[in-house]
Order: sequence, then structure tokens, then C-alpha cells
Amino acid sequence: MVRYRFFLGLVCMMAVSAPAPVRGDEGMHLFNALPRQMLQSRHGFEATEQWAEHLRLSSVRFNSGGSGSFISSNGLVLTNHHVASETLQKLSTPERNLLEDGYLAQSLDQELQAPDLELNQLVAIIDVTDEVEAAVDADDETESAKQRQAAIAKIEARSLEESGQRSDVVKLFGGAKYHLYRYKKYTDVRLVWAPETAAAFFGGDADNFEYPRYNLDATIMRVYEDGKPAKLEHFLAWSEKPLDEGDLVFVSGNPGRTQRIFTVDALKFLRDQRIPYLLDFLRRKEVLLQQFSLGGVEAKRRARDELFGIQNARKAYTGMLAGLQDPATMVGKQQREDHLRAGLKGSKFDGNDENPFDVISESQSAKADRLGQDLNLRSELFRIAMQIVLLTAEDQKPNEERLAEFSDARRPSLLQKLYSTAPLYRDLEQFKLADELSRVIEAHGADTLWVQEMMAGKGPRDRAADLVAGTRVDEVDFRKSLVAGGRDGLEKSDDALIQLALMLEPDYREHRAEGDAIDEREVQAYAKLADLIREVEGSGGYPDATFTLRLAFGLVKGYREDGKTIQPKTDFAGAFRHAEEHKGQDDFDLPESWYKHREKINLSTDLNFVCTADIIGGNSGSPVVDRDGKLVGLIFDGNIQSLVSDYAYTDTQARAVSVAGVGILKALRSIYNAPALADSIGK
Amino acid sequence: MVRYRFFLGLVCMMAVSAPAPVRGDEGMHLFNALPRQMLQSRHGFEATEQWAEHLRLSSVRFNSGGSGSFISSNGLVLTNHHVASETLQKLSTPERNLLEDGYLAQSLDQELQAPDLELNQLVAIIDVTDEVEAAVDADDETESAKQRQAAIAKIEARSLEESGQRSDVVKLFGGAKYHLYRYKKYTDVRLVWAPETAAAFFGGDADNFEYPRYNLDATIMRVYEDGKPAKLEHFLAWSEKPLDEGDLVFVSGNPGRTQRIFTVDALKFLRDQRIPYLLDFLRRKEVLLQQFSLGGVEAKRRARDELFGIQNARKAYTGMLAGLQDPATMVGKQQREDHLRAGLKGSKFDGNDENPFDVISESQSAKADRLGQDLNLRSELFRIAMQIVLLTAEDQKPNEERLAEFSDARRPSLLQKLYSTAPLYRDLEQFKLADELSRVIEAHGADTLWVQEMMAGKGPRDRAADLVAGTRVDEVDFRKSLVAGGRDGLEKSDDALIQLALMLEPDYREHRAEGDAIDEREVQAYAKLADLIREVEGSGGYPDATFTLRLAFGLVKGYREDGKTIQPKTDFAGAFRHAEEHKGQDDFDLPESWYKHREKINLSTDLNFVCTADIIGGNSGSPVVDRDGKLVGLIFDGNIQSLVSDYAYTDTQARAVSVAGVGILKALRSIYNAPALADSIGK
Repeated sequence: MVRYRFFLGLVCMMAVSAPAPVRGDEGMHLFNALPRQMLQSRHGFEATEQWAEHLRLSSVRFNSGGSGSFISSNGLVLTNHHVASETLQKLSTPERNLLEDGYLAQSLDQELQAPDLELNQLVAIIDVTDEVEAAVDADDETESAKQRQAAIAKIEARSLEESGQRSDVVKLFGGAKYHLYRYKKYTDVRLVWAPETAAAFFGGDADNFEYPRYNLDATIMRVYEDGKPAKLEHFLAWSEKPLDEGDLVFVSGNPGRTQRIFTVDALKFLRDQRIPYLLDFLRRKEVLLQQFSLGGVEAKRRARDELFGIQNARKAYTGMLAGLQDPATMVGKQQREDHLRAGLKGSKFDGNDENPFDVISESQSAKADRLGQDLNLRSELFRIAMQIVLLTAEDQKPNEERLAEFSDARRPSLLQKLYSTAPLYRDLEQFKLADELSRVIEAHGADTLWVQEMMAGKGPRDRAADLVAGTRVDEVDFRKSLVAGGRDGLEKSDDALIQLALMLEPDYREHRAEGDAIDEREVQAYAKLADLIREVEGSGGYPDATFTLRLAFGLVKGYREDGKTIQPKTDFAGAFRHAEEHKGQDDFDLPESWYKHREKINLSTDLNFVCTADIIGGNSGSPVVDRDGKLVGLIFDGNIQSLVSDYAYTDTQARAVSVAGVGILKALRSIYNAPALADSIGK
Repeated sequence: MVRYRFFLGLVCMMAVSAPAPVRGDEGMHLFNALPRQMLQSRHGFEATEQWAEHLRLSSVRFNSGGSGSFISSNGLVLTNHHVASETLQKLSTPERNLLEDGYLAQSLDQELQAPDLELNQLVAIIDVTDEVEAAVDADDETESAKQRQAAIAKIEARSLEESGQRSDVVKLFGGAKYHLYRYKKYTDVRLVWAPETAAAFFGGDADNFEYPRYNLDATIMRVYEDGKPAKLEHFLAWSEKPLDEGDLVFVSGNPGRTQRIFTVDALKFLRDQRIPYLLDFLRRKEVLLQQFSLGGVEAKRRARDELFGIQNARKAYTGMLAGLQDPATMVGKQQREDHLRAGLKGSKFDGNDENPFDVISESQSAKADRLGQDLNLRSELFRIAMQIVLLTAEDQKPNEERLAEFSDARRPSLLQKLYSTAPLYRDLEQFKLADELSRVIEAHGADTLWVQEMMAGKGPRDRAADLVAGTRVDEVDFRKSLVAGGRDGLEKSDDALIQLALMLEPDYREHRAEGDAIDEREVQAYAKLADLIREVEGSGGYPDATFTLRLAFGLVKGYREDGKTIQPKTDFAGAFRHAEEHKGQDDFDLPESWYKHREKINLSTDLNFVCTADIIGGNSGSPVVDRDGKLVGLIFDGNIQSLVSDYAYTDTQARAVSVAGVGILKALRSIYNAPALADSIGK
């Protein structure tokens, strides 16, 4: 799965440029800087303004970490099942397991409202680089970071007021560019159709990131406005024609993060410290949630989506680490760096300032010391408590001085999540919190004073039990009353988790500020490095991914693996064959609905396909369109070989994996008894 | 499960004394120093020489990590299913899954020979302290460690020659005592009966270390001599009478390791570094083997026993860490230490030498630096290759100068394992080796010269594939030919794994020697501390566990948990009820055989029970006997509350968990169609 959520939570975002000479179909291009010439010369394709605008306005971002597209005039949205799964989990109950059983609304009133989804449609991009830079004049990193943050908050607040639209300033090319993105927001999003996980995640963890695949990783939702299906001007028509090998396709989605400009030292930090640390962390949580799931059928249901997400991230990072541990990877990166370092000498960057390679190298050591030293207790209840604590403090400050997520422009999205009615399970929260307390003791030392204060003389299990028993932050109304009561009221609250969050707040803020200063220093160095690259390698290119809308493109194309040719497309017949070959294995049973309707399916219909487009986590749910802008597929994964694309694109074997549009239509009509839904798509 | 195997592999053995005032039924007593007075005064029981000797000679040690007992005159041996499971795994094939399906030999010729089991019956204990100490006169730790090791090798070799029996010198009370243990060895051991894992490990990982339990964790083997069932003089008669709460019982088995004398700093090292490190390691291997198991039904079978063992160790260490992270634990330990430190002043230990607390504290730092720095690649194939490499070098040295396991006295046991015909699976080995290479890169750094040499320019997966493709050490005859060829032949071998082991050998030896020096220094400090304890607290007591035969005792006794009374015994009816309550959960289906014969079972027959006897990993399979020395049970687990007994005994809630002897007989007769086998037991 190319879901972004778990990457987002765990890996610090770093928006830096990679204007190196692009290889093959490399590139996650800005919609306001499309590679029109390259598309024309290499593929004979003219990307008109109209074509691009229609595609952009038909694309949506799932703020929870994923992509999607509008696919009908009356508000239908297509995304992946694994992007929707968080919502499916939240809408499920012991009696109604949407993940397991899937769902089909037979009428509008059966469409189920998601408790906290926010979808963003990118309506405008405005360059605000000059305004941001003009506001920064301090020498000291902590101060300049504050100035920059203040300028951004101001621009965003003004834009929100002017346009009424969500307004995010996005840092591109490592801070060389700042663009203001304006989004139309949809917060009333309802579930229309989802298949069973057995169909969507057929092959489970075993097949994840593998190919050939046979997954119906698709879900359909609908956006509403004023309680009615939204009327959409821009949505994607669907192609009924199967793709052929060699066809040119485009992907419009929100890649989460890449680090292609990373220096060798930065990659070594990933290889030797950060990713090993993350993998230890993820495996810990994987085993923990497996243990919780042993508690019974209902326990398993409660932990399910989170466990899937963690396994997905663990498998992705394992692949990334394997790539970084291959000496060949570093040799290539080192060669480029040697070339750049040579170019540094005698260039305009020579001598007049710190060497950016050295600055970045120092940053890595600083970051290594901070691994695991954060003060987050990763449980939903604690996250909520800490957010309320921070919010009540930030609300007392002027807009420009607040932590980024609490600014006037961003506060509504934060509150939308904070007041989510999604169910919280006290047993699961307590289990997770006990492990987090134990982890914090390990990381900070049991003899540390604030750790002892945090533990209140108890062991992790007993303390977690007390904290969960002593809190009401799982009640939405209680959260609202705490926020309404402001800082003074909060400080008087006897809620156990609020008290804990208040106790940890000063250290949390200090740790975060330190991290921001390190990042600021590094960002400045990368901005310089980006300039150097432009000077030495002379290319423009695209900025590293920032979970904002990008256009990628490529060809439908098979590849060679272990001496065998992997065909680019699979079909429904292959799915049944695959199930047969793995009989008796977990997660390899197709759902009953498939067997029941087997006769009705034209088994040679395309189900999945691969292409060379440059994607990464966050692209999940992105529409794949053809030259005419018609939907032909739905991105849902990258193969194992693509897991290195965080730091290096290659099209030798790496491929993006999609569900075929024709396969989705066929499934709706033949398997899921949804001909009316299928008929309304693209219209 | 209280299996010792995985503890043995992962945790350095440390034999130190804990002569603190004992609490309740605390104590793992030496058979040559039984607490006769205490038994008499507290329980009115007279442990006669004859009673003790019969029990000792009826007990056996499974050298693979567990305990057992002789239960018939014609060689029958009782142990746990989870002690036998390694053998069951090795005897299984894709067509014959003994773990899954169980086994019953209908006649002697159907009894299946284990490929590498060695059983030890303790026939004599001789105090050799004076001889060992007389040989040590060096001041320097490295030198004195060598002298001590030489003296031990000499004593063992002489004893072997004199008696023809396996001869191990055991270091007790932290080196204050050295006892020579002579064992009669049985190396022809055959499988007679095993139940299905569904019955033996009913409730799986979820129920492991929990109580109440309903597990038939038992297996019966038979020892052979000269190709015929061994004629045994000593074996346990069985009681047909159910136990009652309050009954006095005895456990005769081989507890693996305890660390009850550990100083506060040593416990903090466990809490803050060693156990967190081990848990990361275990979770890594757990997820790895789960991933391998996703490869299919046969892959799952291949990895099964190892995965179970790892999950068992992970759960045990999680419990231990929880105990150590409870501030109350450390408070008690600190109080005792303060008392001892106060006693140090003005005592004969004052001033004339280094403070043992300080020495031990320094040792912990040294050990912290070494975590994960070893040069073992944990795959069977590499283990074999490295052992052959070391063996050919050690064989060239005089007996007294060799690494301990290669001495004349120990070499036969080593060869027995080295030449095991147990199947090795190249796919599994390659998978494990790739992960180990990746782990070594993480631990030692990808830029380290010998790491680069080890990787030969490849990434972990490719390198592992090359190494496994390039080795033949999975063939027993090839191993024998390598050993026969001696060092010269070995150095010319082009076997890929042998070459790798040869390359790593110097660093391996250096690392090990460093570790031995640290241990020696620590052992000397603990010996001093043991003296101090004797002076201050004035008690004799028992030495910490050393995987040698000990006698524990206690009462059949329930306990209170979360406000509820936990009854000491469970029965077959409870097993069926438990299955019903957990319907739909993995590992909670009783096997078909139980349902098929349900009507025949007297459901009120005892199945499991708990007692207060002081046990630990390694006690698995220990017989539990009554005052008459008759078998009443079979130790197979400790409850969650007992997981702290590594460093502290308590009988408030901690309990040893046993299969009832009457339950085993009932199952053999009513479920497993083995009345003849049942009838031959105890006769």
C-alpha cells in the first residue's frame, strides 16, 4: 500500500529540491510548472492549460493521508480501500464490520457520514516567496525560523479571510520557493461503496508491495454540501477501453515525501540510525497490536486498521533499508556528491559561507541524538489531551506566534479532527498507553525526575489503568467544554490525562523548538545545495514531494525479475488462480461474493496494471488518466523495487501498481450488484 | 512456557549466590545441600537420603534446554510438549506434521529416533573448589580466567577418563564453590507419544503465562541403550490420587538461570538496556519469521517451532521488564543494598579491596557497550560453519587452553549436535541470514571495513543468497569431512560460509575474550558480595540457578487476582468451556480428538494446577512429586506474576503451573487410544 498516513506520523517532512538530471519518466511535477516540453518531445503529448486544469480540479486530497478523484457530477469520489479504511474502521461497530464485509448504500440516505474526513480540492497556486523572504532578517536559526513561521501564518490568515478557502503556504525546493495553495474544503463526506477487505487487500501482508497483484483496492464516497450531494463542475470521465502495454498515462495525486536531494551523510543517517530505529518502533507496535488482538474477535476488530497500517509501514521501511544497505546505492549517490563538491570549489558558493554538506552532516548527528527522545505518548487519548493543552495556550497568543497547526488558517482543520466522533476504545487505549509509558521509561531512563513524576510511583500497566480510568477526553462534549473553558479552566481540571499533558507540556515544547531549529538550519543548507545543483547540473526539475498535488507520468510497462518477464496487466481469472495456488494461507481467500458471481464476470477483464510513473506514499488513491484525461486506473501500491524511490527513481524494475478502471466498473456491475452506481460514474 | 532454550541462547549465564533470608517456599536447592531442617520444621517432612537419591536419579535434563523424568522401568521419559517440540519439528516433514497432528507409536519399531537429543541423569556431585582455587594465582583477570578455565578442563577430562561419564564442573555461589557433576548420558532418545499442539499449547500465545490454564503440555519419549529400551532402576511411580489445596509438592528439575543476587545497578542495566535490547531483537525475529511464514503452508511449518520459542521469550521478557519498571521492585532491592553497603563499613571487606558494588556497576557499563556487538549471525548454517572453524583451531591446542565447549570432556556433546541429521531448510536459512547481515550492518556500521568485506559489494538479500548457494554445510557428511580435514584442509575450502566464518573468526575470538574478562571480573565481585551477604545477613541458602538439578518445594495453592479468587486446579470440563468462550479466536480450538472422545472423558478429572514452588525457565518438564515421591504433576509454565522470579521470589501471586499426572493418564486412556502406554507408566 502506498498510504501516507503512517509515514506522515513517523517521519519528519522535509521539502527539498531534487533538480538533478531526470531519468526515464522521473518526476513529481508541480501543476504550475508542468514539463510541457519534455512531454511533447518524448511522448508527443501536448498538456494544454485546459487539460491540466480539469485534471487538477478533478483531483482531491484526503487530508488523512491519501489521494482521490471526483468521478461524477453529483459528488462521487474514488479512492483506495486502504485510504478509506480508517473511516471504515471508525464507522464499524461490533455488529457492523465494514472492513470485513464491505458496504453498498442502496440510496442516498444509506450513505454513511465519515466522522472526521476533510477532502481538499486545489483551486489556486500563488507564489509568495518574496513576501516570506522579505520578512526574514535574523541571523540566528531559532529567530529566523520564528520570523518565517510568522510570515507564513500572516499570509495564510489573510488568504483565508480574502477567499474563505483553506490556505496553506508550501515550502518547495528546500525553502527556495514558497507557494500559497488554496483549497476548497469538503468536510461532509459519506461512504457509498466499499468491497470486502478480502478483495481489497487480497494476499494481505504477504502480497503487499508485490506484483503481479489482483486487488480491488477501491472505495467510493460522496462529498456533500449543505446536506446534499455536491454539484461538481470538474470530474473525470472514464475510459471503457482496456490499456495496452506502452500506453502513456498520467497520475495526479499527492506524493507525501521524498528525499532525493539527500546528501550521502543524510542517507547514512537514514540507513544507520533513523530507519533501524523506526523499524524497532514499528515492530514493537506490530507485536503489541497483535497481542491486543489475541484478546478476542472484538479486540481484533478494534486494532485492525492500525495494525494493517503499521505492517504496511514496516514492510515499506524494510524495503527502503535494504536498498540503502546495498552498496551500489551509496556508490551512485557518492559519485554525484563528489561531482557537486568538486563544483563547489571556485563557484559562487565557495568560501563565503559554511559548506552545506558539512551543515547537513552536523544536522544528522543532532537528529541521531534526538531519536526516540520525543515526549509523545502514542495513544489517541493522550494525543487529544496534549492537543487541548497546546490549543488553550496557543489561543492566547497572536496568530503569528503560534505553533503552525494552531494558526487561524489551520485551526478549523485541527478542530475538525479534535472533535471527531470516531469511537475510541478504552481497552485498546490503555494497552497502548502502558506500552508507551514503558517505552518512555526506556528512552529517558526510569531514574529521570519527570519520568518518575509521570509514573506516580506505579509500573506502566497500573499507571496506564489509572490514567485511562481518570480521563473523560474520549467524550467529544467534554473536549469542547475544556477548549471553551480556556487555559484557566484547563489548569484546574482534575482529568488525569489533561494533568499529565500539562506536566509534560514544557518539555514537549522545548524538544519541539530544538527540533525546529535543527530543521531550519538544515533547510537553509538544502536551499543552498539546491542552488549549487542548479549551477553545476544546470537543470530545473521538480521539488521533493510535500503531500501536495503533483503530476507524474509514465508508460504501462512490464519488467524482468529473476529471469522472468512480468506482464504489465492482470485480470480476474488471475485472481481466482492466485487464490487457488495459495489455498490454506491466511488472506488468500477471495470473498464469497466473488465465487458467487464468478460466472457473471468476464474473467479476462483487466484487474491491476503497472506503469513507470514516479509515485510514493500519499499517491494512494490517485487517479490514473490517459491522454484524453479519462480515468483508466487507480494507484494503490508500488512494487518492492519501487521502495527505494524515496531517495532514487529508477524505471528498470520499479513500478506503480494500479487497479484498472475497467476492473472497478466490472466488479460493481457483476459482483457487487451496483449497476446504478456504475452507470452514474463519469457522468 | 518455561522453556530454557531461548534464554540460554540469548542471556549470558551468570552463576551467583543469593543467600538472602528466604521468603515463603523460596529456594532452588542443591541436591547435596537440601534444606532438611526447614522441610521438617515448616512442613513436617523428612527428606531421607533414599527419598532424595531416588528422585535425583529419576530426574533427567534435556540438554537442549529443559527437564524431564524417568517414568517406567523400560526407559519411558516424560517431559513437556514444548520441550519436545524442537524434536517434533525436526522429525516432521511436509507430509508428516508431528507438531500439528501429534504422534503415537503403536509398537517399539514405530518409536521415532530424535536426531540430536542428549539426556543427562545426575549420578554424582563432587566438591572440587579447593582444586580449582589452588590453580589460580594471577592478579590480572584475563590470566586468572584462563587459569581457572584450565583447571576446570583438567578436572573434567580426568573425571571423564575415570568414570566414562559426562563431567561438568559447575560454578556455584558466584565462584565461591565449584562442584563436579557427573552424568549418565542417553543419546538414543525416541518419540513415543505427543498430543496435537492444539491440546498442548491450547490458548497459544494469548494464554501463555496465564492462569487458569487447560493445557496437555506433555510428551513421552523413551531412552534406548544398545538399540534396546534402557532398563532403569530408578523411575517415578505415579499417584492416582488427585491433589488437594494445601498439599506439599516437590519439583526436581533444572532451572536455567536466576539473578537474585544482582545489585541495583545490575538490575538497572537489565531494565534500561539489556532487556529493551533483547525485546527489540526478539520482536525483530518474531516479525521476520511471521513474514517467512506468509510464504505458504510449508513455509509456516518450517518456521513454526522457532517462532513459538521466540514469542515465548518475548512474552517472558516483557513481563520481566514490566516488573523491573515497577518502582516498588527497585525500592525493595535498594533497601537491601543500602543495608549491605552499611554492613560493608567496618567489616573485613572494608578498605582492603575494591568495593564489589562499584566493580559490578562498572561491569554494567562495559556490557552496555557490547550489546549487539557480537559477531554471531543467527542462522543454523552459519552457526555450524563457525563451530567447525573454531573446532579445527581448538583441536590443535592442549585441552586446558581450549574454549570451554571444545574441551575433551565437552567435545562429544558438541559433536552430537554438530552432526545432527535434523533437516535444515535453505529457504528459511537464507531468509534469516539476510536479516542477520542487515542487523550486523546496523550494529557495526556499513562503512566498517570488515563489514564491507563480509558483504562482498552486495546488499543483504543478494549476499545471503550467494552464501547459501555457495555452502554445503547443511550436509552432515560434508561437515564430518571438514572436521576430519583439520585446519589446513579447512583453510583451503571454497565453501562460502566456511570462508565467511574464517574471515570473522579473529574478531569473534577477540570479542569473546573481552566478554570473558568482563565476566571474570564480575564473578569475582559477586563472590565477594556473596561473602558479605553471608556476614551481614547470616544465612546460607541456595545458589542462583545454573541449569543443573535442583529441588524446589511448595504448596498447591490458589491466589487472589483483580479481586477474584483463582482456584488452584482446573479440569477437562474447563478446557471445553474455555474453548467455547473463545470461539473464533486463533489457537482456541481443541483438537478433533478431544471432541470425538468427549463422552469418554471423566470431565471432572484434574488437568492443570498451580503451586508455590520456586521455578524458572529450564524447569519445563520437571516432575512434581508428593511426599511419597510419587509423580503428581509436570511443570510447564509460570503465571505472569512469576515472571519477576528471575530476580525476586514471591508467593503472593506467583505460581508454577503444572499438568496434573492424573490428567495425563486420563488423556492417554480416553482421548489418545493409548491404554497400554498408560498401563506401563510407573511400572
